[in-house]
Amino acid sequence: MDTPQPSEFAERRSKLSVSLDGARADAFLTSFLPNCRYLSGFTGSNAALLISDRRAILFTDPRYELQAPQEADCEVRIVKGSLVKEVAKWAKRLGVRTLAFESQHITFQAHKMLKEAVSEIRLKPVDNAVEALRMVKSDAEIETIRVSVELNSRALEQALRRFKPTMTEVDLAGEIEYRMRKLGAERPSFETIVAAGERSALPHARPTDKAIGTDHLLLIDMGSSVAGYASDMTRTFAVGKLDGKTRRMYRAVLESQLAAIDAIKPGVSCGSVDGAARKVLRGHGLDRYFVHSTGHGLGLEIHEPPRVGRKEQTKLEAGMVVTVEPGVYEAGVGGIRIEDTVVVTSDGCKPLTPTPKELAVL
Amino acid sequence: MDTPQPSEFAERRSKLSVSLDGARADAFLTSFLPNCRYLSGFTGSNAALLISDRRAILFTDPRYELQAPQEADCEVRIVKGSLVKEVAKWAKRLGVRTLAFESQHITFQAHKMLKEAVSEIRLKPVDNAVEALRMVKSDAEIETIRVSVELNSRALEQALRRFKPTMTEVDLAGEIEYRMRKLGAERPSFETIVAAGERSALPHARPTDKAIGTDHLLLIDMGSSVAGYASDMTRTFAVGKLDGKTRRMYRAVLESQLAAIDAIKPGVSCGSVDGAARKVLRGHGLDRYFVHSTGHGLGLEIHEPPRVGRKEQTKLEAGMVVTVEPGVYEAGVGGIRIEDTVVVTSDGCKPLTPTPKELAVL
Repeated sequence: MDTPQPSEFAERRSKLSVSLDGARADAFLTSFLPNCRYLSGFTGSNAALLISDRRAILFTDPRYELQAPQEADCEVRIVKGSLVKEVAKWAKRLGVRTLAFESQHITFQAHKMLKEAVSEIRLKPVDNAVEALRMVKSDAEIETIRVSVELNSRALEQALRRFKPTMTEVDLAGEIEYRMRKLGAERPSFETIVAAGERSALPHARPTDKAIGTDHLLLIDMGSSVAGYASDMTRTFAVGKLDGKTRRMYRAVLESQLAAIDAIKPGVSCGSVDGAARKVLRGHGLDRYFVHSTGHGLGLEIHEPPRVGRKEQTKLEAGMVVTVEPGVYEAGVGGIRIEDTVVVTSDGCKPLTPTPKELAVL
Repeated sequence: MDTPQPSEFAERRSKLSVSLDGARADAFLTSFLPNCRYLSGFTGSNAALLISDRRAILFTDPRYELQAPQEADCEVRIVKGSLVKEVAKWAKRLGVRTLAFESQHITFQAHKMLKEAVSEIRLKPVDNAVEALRMVKSDAEIETIRVSVELNSRALEQALRRFKPTMTEVDLAGEIEYRMRKLGAERPSFETIVAAGERSALPHARPTDKAIGTDHLLLIDMGSSVAGYASDMTRTFAVGKLDGKTRRMYRAVLESQLAAIDAIKPGVSCGSVDGAARKVLRGHGLDRYFVHSTGHGLGLEIHEPPRVGRKEQTKLEAGMVVTVEPGVYEAGVGGIRIEDTVVVTSDGCKPLTPTPKELAVL
């Protein structure tokens, strides 16, 4: 008889078990949805996953009675009421002695319920156990992210063909999201940002009903979710004419972004990539306007480890996928951000985003 | 000199302080975004709000340096790094003795950090303190929800004008979301569900690339977010011809939904509204296919208290806004759900959803 191949999810679970040996836990619990999905394949909106040496059990509610067994590669238990109580019952039944839980995801309340229900089991907080695995993507995951990134770029290209300065920010955001959907995205991976003129100085601006207008900046930050995997891109355009100062700012941000991409290779710390971006802006006297990190990992979540930020010591590894997105924001003037997604390779990195970065005039 | 009127947010904070007297806490902390927004006006994606008898301070990161003071009616502190540590510093500075925190929202990790940082302050878990206030909507909130519900219905109407059975589920979902945006929604308030034929039996189906086809059911569950407030509506259509059994199921679900709406008035428990829906389906031998609750509150969140579910003891009050959405799902056959949003009035309830509910053939 042929031994069946373990699924990708089972492989991930066994990698997790190995990494949990250090915590001396014989079982692991997550109810954080991206982690449940990563370790079981289940995509629903309510789940807990209990993994012991011998078994993996996914708990969800009756809405997912048909969907959960289709998606998950492991045992599924449909639970009416509290998932935590059912997890506790099964942890005892499986003879678990030490149960690792995710201290950055479980709520104080769920932890308390769990503790009361399994008083004889030791509960052990672990941090980033699944996130550490998720940081380094498989070839299949990188391929899915590449598809997501390219779809996202095509959606922008198609939406910009319909661009007119009389459109409102909301109109353009709607056009962008419609194109994403038509091209096969499940949804935007975050709220699309379309910010014209002074509003571009708000790094997380919501689109408004204001017409976009001309002779100023237009910042667009957008992402698509494809087969669960996020993409993320920012481009800043000139609508009509820009003054010399703004054009110089644009060049400085682009130079900063290219410097950060140049700095990316295995073994380099995320902090030094951030430093490379910041250093260029400092040279232009603009570093005080750069108020966020240089980038972040992305995958099943739009923001996931590693954070490419100041002093961040995580070392880059081949297979990590991160955004590179320095920006400068001057209140009352405007903001410029340029963001690509790159995959770390064995000797550097490969940008996945095909959209051009030279200042384009709409 | 005129005394300035307290803002709606300040009023809510003072109501909260009164309700916290029972917990004997002299300060309250939330980092749950819908609660931060409800109590301060801030709409960003990262926040903590500390409310003491004397002051309310909103903490957020530098991305929101310009936006936060525009939106929030209270003091704003821009924090680089951990918000929890800054909250701890200010709690000590304000002389807080007992700090109430939200045990169902704060993570185990954040609680631990807070506890270590304010060892001299008593931490007191409270549950649903803000949610209890949020359950009963103000007239202005009800008006915003009404606008959201009506926009959502118009978006469905406009999208259905373009309906063809050769469209895929994803195409139709994209069309619906585009119409929402065009009509002024910020975004869908959850992932739009478009499920044809057998797939309608999955209560939370994701749209697929399959053509919708004919002679079966089409279930659409959609919501819009308008000025932060959600709407939520489900309609189930006949595409072409349905068999007699399916048409009878539709009538049973509609009868169940009308019975639940009839049962809604102040003083009635949520559980008995759920019971009214379930009783009708039991009479048709369909109650075993009704695998979820009858409804839920909605507002700044798409699902918020009260839950209109089995044994739920919360009593309805005028100003509460809930969905009413019984459904039946038979594997391999299909699913039917009909969902409206209603506001509880002084002597009954008023359905807000204008979309017709009689079985429509597309």
